[in-house]
Amino acid sequence: AAQPAAMAQSGDSLPSWNDGAVKQGIEAFVRQATTASSAGWVPGAERIAVFDNDGTLWSEQPMYFQFLFALDQVKAMAPAHPEWKTTAPFDAVLAGDVKAVLAGGDKGMAQILMATHTGMDTEQFSQSVSAWVASARHPRSGRPFTDMVYQPMLELLALLRENGFKIYIVSGGTVEFMRAWSERVYGIPPEQVIGTSFVTRFDRGADGRPVLRREAKLDFLDDGPGKPVAIQKYIGRRPVFAFGNSDGDLQMLQWTAAGPGARFMGLVHHTDGEREWAYDRASSIGRLDKALDEATARRWTVVDMKRDWKRVYPFP
Amino acid sequence: AAQPAAMAQSGDSLPSWNDGAVKQGIEAFVRQATTASSAGWVPGAERIAVFDNDGTLWSEQPMYFQFLFALDQVKAMAPAHPEWKTTAPFDAVLAGDVKAVLAGGDKGMAQILMATHTGMDTEQFSQSVSAWVASARHPRSGRPFTDMVYQPMLELLALLRENGFKIYIVSGGTVEFMRAWSERVYGIPPEQVIGTSFVTRFDRGADGRPVLRREAKLDFLDDGPGKPVAIQKYIGRRPVFAFGNSDGDLQMLQWTAAGPGARFMGLVHHTDGEREWAYDRASSIGRLDKALDEATARRWTVVDMKRDWKRVYPFP
Ligand SMILES: [Ca+2]
Ligand SMILES: [Ca+2]
Repeated sequence: AAQPAAMAQSGDSLPSWNDGAVKQGIEAFVRQATTASSAGWVPGAERIAVFDNDGTLWSEQPMYFQFLFALDQVKAMAPAHPEWKTTAPFDAVLAGDVKAVLAGGDKGMAQILMATHTGMDTEQFSQSVSAWVASARHPRSGRPFTDMVYQPMLELLALLRENGFKIYIVSGGTVEFMRAWSERVYGIPPEQVIGTSFVTRFDRGADGRPVLRREAKLDFLDDGPGKPVAIQKYIGRRPVFAFGNSDGDLQMLQWTAAGPGARFMGLVHHTDGEREWAYDRASSIGRLDKALDEATARRWTVVDMKRDWKRVYPFP
Repeated sequence: AAQPAAMAQSGDSLPSWNDGAVKQGIEAFVRQATTASSAGWVPGAERIAVFDNDGTLWSEQPMYFQFLFALDQVKAMAPAHPEWKTTAPFDAVLAGDVKAVLAGGDKGMAQILMATHTGMDTEQFSQSVSAWVASARHPRSGRPFTDMVYQPMLELLALLRENGFKIYIVSGGTVEFMRAWSERVYGIPPEQVIGTSFVTRFDRGADGRPVLRREAKLDFLDDGPGKPVAIQKYIGRRPVFAFGNSDGDLQMLQWTAAGPGARFMGLVHHTDGEREWAYDRASSIGRLDKALDEATARRWTVVDMKRDWKRVYPFP
């Protein structure tokens, strides 16, 4: 339910953010967007906010969590695939040799994704994600992966929601992986999750009931220049607020910035090697290089995780 | 704003529907869906309703309105295309020879659609639709095309909205054609319009600003088995309420029907040759044949336009 005076009521809607230019900038944008007499006012229907997921709303180290799910799925599905024991890259996964898996590069990764994400119907896939989310644990924290979300960003999502923003995830991750838990964890319903997708076909199950079959073929890659294309396709409106963390978000930020009136463009910069991870220009996961230069040049908001976040995760 | 007691307040939320089994069936479904103690109760988040557009929410005769837009666009764009004067199917369009245009079949129609719907950026296209909607008139009524919407269906949309349903259009028409006017005419915002789409590319305009360029290539055909696929892709939840008017809606209705709990599947049957048009099994536009058989066999709701609608359009 919309609470126009949310900030005034609670005193501080962003308690996990340290005071400073970043926090003040976010608060000022939201205040002006919701003040009809302000030059920064944004009409209700145009309050569209888009967030990248990996590295923006939750962690993405030591590797994308969805890829860890895929590795676990290979193990779970192995009994039905005896040939995997002697076939790369599956043999390396089953042997627990992550280095060899990563050495297989994009091609090996794509094989693992296809084998674990397609060939079943949409309901079976969602169930396998839900089961994994309930049982799997992050290798460093020992916590469920859905605990590895950023408390400051949860507060930001709530602040935007309370002020009438409609929030979308726009992620390179696959859409049905996120939809299985996005509503519970972020309060973002399935219909506001946009991601990479596989070709899906309407078919009949063994019992004659209609099913949607996931095929081993990429439908849409929601990354880089694909992000503004997906925003247009799914939302049909240009966002006024966009947050990412890597070069894969650059075009989404550019597209958001190019509209008229008040806009907010933000990047999470991973600077905290102690509480989280520190990486940017040279990282193979979540590389932040060109987008960091453009953000600096155009005075977009850059969150310095170490400086700006009082705490990182919801757990102590 | 949600008004749980909408029906009780107004006495009759569907004044343009004649009393009878169809009207009573709709009212009963909505009443039960919103009554927590009822076996037909539907939790708020699952109140997803999907509607076909052409022939379900507005008329589609003497031909799809979007195709009439395309023909008008050929004339508007002709000065920049002198070669069209001597090239089929454009020469026939410019000569006003609709019969010859239709004789060109699907291939000619596709050429006309591509020439008028792609090659520009998304904002230019939306502007051309808005300009057409403001000026063009239906050949029979002399009214704007957006007046040719069904008053009983507008009342049904309002009733569902007031009872917490999130309403999507799922149409074979192209998505950005509908988004240009769906919010004003139906109260359905752009992000709840799903349709056929063209491949779109992130690019730079002449002034260096980012643009989304529409390419002369089909991205997704939102018809027949494509409809449940699109529903999964965009919404990620199975609807509980679906309304169509032709065989192109059959799989959407089957997909809706196959879920657990209370469901509503409806078809508009065009039976009123006097106030609207009468057509079904033999029509090339909006053919209703297999879906009519299945609706009858499975006791889905079939609206007999002549019998069930007190009035057809909002105008007298
Ligand atoms: Ca990211
Ligand atoms: Ca139709």
